[in-house]
Amino acid sequence: MKLYEKYPVSLTNSLSGKKEVFEPLNAPFVGVYSCGPTVYSEVHLGNLRTFTAFDVVYRYLSFIDYKVRYVRNITDAGHLTNDAGQGVDRIEESAKLESLEPMEVVQKYTNSFHEVCELFNILPPSIEPTATGHIVEQIEMVNTILANGFAYVANGSVYFDVRKFMEKHTYGELSGRNIDELLEGTRDLERQDEKRNSVDFAIWKAVSPNHIQRWNSPWGLGIPGWHLECSVMSAKYLGRQFDIHGGGMDLKFPHHECEIAQSVGAYGKAPVRYWMHTNMLTVNGEKMSKSKGNSFLPKELFSGTHPLLDKSYSPMAVRFFMLQSHYSSTLDFSNEALSAAEKGYKKLSSSLTFIKSLNHPGTSTPDPSIHQTLEGLVESCYQNMSDDFNTATTLAVLFEMSSRINDFKSGNVPLSHVDPTVFDTFKNTYVGFMENVLGLKQESGVDDHLLEGTIKVLIELRKKARTDRNFALSDKIRDDLKAIGVQLKDGKDGEISYSIE
Amino acid sequence: MKLYEKYPVSLTNSLSGKKEVFEPLNAPFVGVYSCGPTVYSEVHLGNLRTFTAFDVVYRYLSFIDYKVRYVRNITDAGHLTNDAGQGVDRIEESAKLESLEPMEVVQKYTNSFHEVCELFNILPPSIEPTATGHIVEQIEMVNTILANGFAYVANGSVYFDVRKFMEKHTYGELSGRNIDELLEGTRDLERQDEKRNSVDFAIWKAVSPNHIQRWNSPWGLGIPGWHLECSVMSAKYLGRQFDIHGGGMDLKFPHHECEIAQSVGAYGKAPVRYWMHTNMLTVNGEKMSKSKGNSFLPKELFSGTHPLLDKSYSPMAVRFFMLQSHYSSTLDFSNEALSAAEKGYKKLSSSLTFIKSLNHPGTSTPDPSIHQTLEGLVESCYQNMSDDFNTATTLAVLFEMSSRINDFKSGNVPLSHVDPTVFDTFKNTYVGFMENVLGLKQESGVDDHLLEGTIKVLIELRKKARTDRNFALSDKIRDDLKAIGVQLKDGKDGEISYSIE
Repeated sequence: MKLYEKYPVSLTNSLSGKKEVFEPLNAPFVGVYSCGPTVYSEVHLGNLRTFTAFDVVYRYLSFIDYKVRYVRNITDAGHLTNDAGQGVDRIEESAKLESLEPMEVVQKYTNSFHEVCELFNILPPSIEPTATGHIVEQIEMVNTILANGFAYVANGSVYFDVRKFMEKHTYGELSGRNIDELLEGTRDLERQDEKRNSVDFAIWKAVSPNHIQRWNSPWGLGIPGWHLECSVMSAKYLGRQFDIHGGGMDLKFPHHECEIAQSVGAYGKAPVRYWMHTNMLTVNGEKMSKSKGNSFLPKELFSGTHPLLDKSYSPMAVRFFMLQSHYSSTLDFSNEALSAAEKGYKKLSSSLTFIKSLNHPGTSTPDPSIHQTLEGLVESCYQNMSDDFNTATTLAVLFEMSSRINDFKSGNVPLSHVDPTVFDTFKNTYVGFMENVLGLKQESGVDDHLLEGTIKVLIELRKKARTDRNFALSDKIRDDLKAIGVQLKDGKDGEISYSIE
Repeated sequence: MKLYEKYPVSLTNSLSGKKEVFEPLNAPFVGVYSCGPTVYSEVHLGNLRTFTAFDVVYRYLSFIDYKVRYVRNITDAGHLTNDAGQGVDRIEESAKLESLEPMEVVQKYTNSFHEVCELFNILPPSIEPTATGHIVEQIEMVNTILANGFAYVANGSVYFDVRKFMEKHTYGELSGRNIDELLEGTRDLERQDEKRNSVDFAIWKAVSPNHIQRWNSPWGLGIPGWHLECSVMSAKYLGRQFDIHGGGMDLKFPHHECEIAQSVGAYGKAPVRYWMHTNMLTVNGEKMSKSKGNSFLPKELFSGTHPLLDKSYSPMAVRFFMLQSHYSSTLDFSNEALSAAEKGYKKLSSSLTFIKSLNHPGTSTPDPSIHQTLEGLVESCYQNMSDDFNTATTLAVLFEMSSRINDFKSGNVPLSHVDPTVFDTFKNTYVGFMENVLGLKQESGVDDHLLEGTIKVLIELRKKARTDRNFALSDKIRDDLKAIGVQLKDGKDGEISYSIE
């Protein structure tokens, strides 16, 4: 029996607004798409929350035996400041400001995004496709939509014809908007004449020859409309209908609504079975924004250089902090909350270090009540994560497990009272949920851990040498360590501790 | 005065076979293109040597005040096993073997390539374009070449017509081959009928619908010819004529020869002013090849897991080793040479650590003879690197500088005998050439250093235990370390190395 059969996943589908049982189209295969960054500046903390949330979705689905293809795109062309396809091209604008070729801007911020992901232990997706890598496919999709009568050409641009589309299909279902509201909300004063309706959006946008990023198309020189790339790339790599599409809730409208319309307009069926949206990030209770000066970058958190921060917080402390809330709740940054998260992370991490080095002696005089507790905690881990990927309640279970691990450490609960297989399941679950599911790796971990272990080997040798009255050896160990900056200290009880100079 | 004016660069141009003074088309701007990996498997050591060589070219040109745009591509489509455009598609083949989508293969090995580059301190290029990211541009270039009469269509593929091209232009100049030799050398028995001449090569290749990577084109479903992407991407980002094009010497023919023909065939002028080629890598005097079992991966070097390796070598030791030869010489891997390089790197690195922390006291009673020495060494660094990027002779100068640094350390030469500005220039040059030009960063932070030191204490104890025939102790040390993940490896000479699991 596969783990996903034992612990069936339910998730809140933004389409219905309800929690639904997750039924993939072709289990064990699962296709997940999430909207990646537009690489014209440093990635924001809000984006990072979204990427972390879907990283955990990818990790957990894989952990419970699904074979997941996870696609997260890089937008490297076509993203204008106005979502409906007007305004300034973000990448061209950064290129001008920084005196770079647009693709140099793309490279610079793609590299920076990957660095942050690595710090944050966000796994690389199975495929990380780019808008510029799918120009042919985007032109073809525009052609298909035109052929189906849901778009029109105006001055070299192609617009999606929302009213025409609504004659046959619905529009606005995901975001719950109606067309009148949309007409009200998206009215724009500049150059609206080209569009038949203000709700229409560009799927191909004409550009002038001095626009550096540009491609030849049947409609002249242009760039793809921003919404189009996600429709094209998800269909190419996951199929015209696939399982899960995720993104920040600010993308629900118009971006995801447009994706649905484009795919339905081209292929006649809804592209996505389950839509998932992450909630907003606030700072001290206020919405994050550049103008308020409360918008900080991940690197500023890690270095503690932003005026709003009392100190620096490590990537894993911030990751832990984000996972303490359910992805669909708002999440408020404050120094107090971050400090508390840091403590929490350290507690769980220390239990992780301990249990990884703990092996069952192999014999036992089982105590059924302990078994019940340990097995219950294991069950709870799966049940909480399978319940809409609830990282918050899962962390609560891990804290409970950490207390049980401390019982082993202190000797309150002797390992000999635990059946070896129960212990192994408990241990593997704790380690697996910490490291593989939640991605909370040991920080500064590996080497410190090794150093500690190596010094302990020497301390044990020294103890033995003293017992053997081999003082030449025991002195040599002390002196050699001192020479490299490790100071041993002999306790009264024969125990030896150390400090690093 | 810019540094590149003070120390003009000369380089061996493969086109002339001679050392030439480097004169960029538009100083201070310099365009450099080098052929990157085909991401269908782990990157090879030979490739890594080439990437390291051009990393140093990029670093040095930037260091002497040029504004360099460095383009290194990723081949993620169109690379067949036979260079002339026959055979199996490398990425499709890996995709089949690994049961992955071709773009999953691309992602996997692109990630792995980037990891190795980071370990090796190879800087990311300014732009890292992909073949799939330039399908539109490649189709356009094929059209241009067809329109100019230098290509023909056959069964949905488009071939470059070498004989036709040779009626107006020369072919084979870079590699020094003549057409008869080419006709002899590239004859191929399978499916040659499509081509008018065996020397012709595919610039667009028809594929069947079950080929997963494929694009619509004016000639039907197909993939771009391998040679084409470099012509297209170098022209797009560096211009139709640019300064430096680099690659491994195995790419001279046919890859680079084809690039020249394509660009001349499309735009009527030679694309590259200076061609640079790196030489081969051998292992114990033999050519590296999979069938001989002497082909190892960078990660195997760093972990010491290949049977041909006595121990592991750190990335910086390997980088140092590669830089000890001029890029145009063959380079032979052996345990002896690598161990020597490791020692050499450590010597220079230790001087780097020392001089970075050394500040001039501010007063001095200058000694002109010392000044002459120090200033001469500074001059030599630039002169050697400006002389065809000679990293080998530059390292020799850095060793000399390291000895002078040791004189400061020991007090043989009191800092008070050196003028502060002379000292600062000397210090900045040593640090700059080590870190910025050669990319030889300090390898281990405090913790690694301590860990290394602690493990060495144990290794020395183990050696002594063996000399004393105290095998219980020597075994215990080995086993205790193994238990915490440190693997000791006994060399033939009684030396003990370690690797971390």
